[in-house]
Amino acid sequence: MMLILASSSPRRANLLCQVGIPFTIIEPTIQESMEKGVPASEMVARLALNKALSVSEKVEGGYVLSADTAVFSGTEVMGKPADEKDARRMLRQLSGTKHLVISGLALVDAATGFYENGFSETYVWLKHLREDQINSYIATGEPMDKAGAYGIQDRAALFVEKIDGCYFNVVGLPLGLLFDFFTRMQIPAWFNKRG
Amino acid sequence: MMLILASSSPRRANLLCQVGIPFTIIEPTIQESMEKGVPASEMVARLALNKALSVSEKVEGGYVLSADTAVFSGTEVMGKPADEKDARRMLRQLSGTKHLVISGLALVDAATGFYENGFSETYVWLKHLREDQINSYIATGEPMDKAGAYGIQDRAALFVEKIDGCYFNVVGLPLGLLFDFFTRMQIPAWFNKRG
Repeated sequence: MMLILASSSPRRANLLCQVGIPFTIIEPTIQESMEKGVPASEMVARLALNKALSVSEKVEGGYVLSADTAVFSGTEVMGKPADEKDARRMLRQLSGTKHLVISGLALVDAATGFYENGFSETYVWLKHLREDQINSYIATGEPMDKAGAYGIQDRAALFVEKIDGCYFNVVGLPLGLLFDFFTRMQIPAWFNKRG
Repeated sequence: MMLILASSSPRRANLLCQVGIPFTIIEPTIQESMEKGVPASEMVARLALNKALSVSEKVEGGYVLSADTAVFSGTEVMGKPADEKDARRMLRQLSGTKHLVISGLALVDAATGFYENGFSETYVWLKHLREDQINSYIATGEPMDKAGAYGIQDRAALFVEKIDGCYFNVVGLPLGLLFDFFTRMQIPAWFNKRG
């Protein structure tokens, strides 16, 4: 029994460590292209599945796990900020309002090709942020590699008024949904208990 | 400028580290006694304030921070489980249903005695847990030192369907409320930026 994480995100790896699931990492090589005219939830679910399938084709066995997370504010899909100016624009836009975080998740049984695929949605309400607070946060460098220019698991935790949904989805890996996938595929949640 | 954490909880210390706030720890010596006939939210707020005040009396200056967290399920206030049997009882009771986590928070300016005091409420929905899942989780030892016999920041993250409110409140320190206290007391959120 082996879990393969098809992602280069250190935050996803950290979450798997937290829940005590051993894994190896094989980074997917496919491009993350946004398709037009597809519902947001379907888009991130497909991206996660494509990444997982691209890795499962290269291995003999094991379960390949992949996720894709996007931040939706109004009509904008927010990726990682291009620069500090872009980060400031995103944080100003998210300040004092709610936005939606959707993560697609895919778990592929590489030996059989059988898979589970779905998504998780969480609303996040950020407090009103003053310009000096936004600038202090940008000065930490933390916003630059994160969709929506903030990380709920870093200093920006202080900015969050409340959430409605799965917290770990906002971090980047919806653990509740992963547990459902384990259950449906009859995989014990803790691999290391199987011996 | 100095923050003093009046708590022996490693989880609260970890959250302060996460948001980049330097602090020292002075453990409060007062007993955490439950008062009868007081609303739950008022009870945890008072406990937090009493702990913070007991430490602030012993120091010359600085801001003393304290929190108290309780899990409410039906009419029961869940503390830490007495033993594995008690942990099993709690997890069975929480399985497949929602419960309420309330953290009281207090921040005392030791030099002036001025303080902020309040509470944060978060609803948590746990998935339906099978007996073997409960037993596997208890076997990890993680439930034993936690109110309600689970830690949302440990392996039990997999068991959480969703939350409504502040996630960090469930971990034990409501960071959103702490940010509000900083703002009201005109304390910059990042002490280390003040020099």
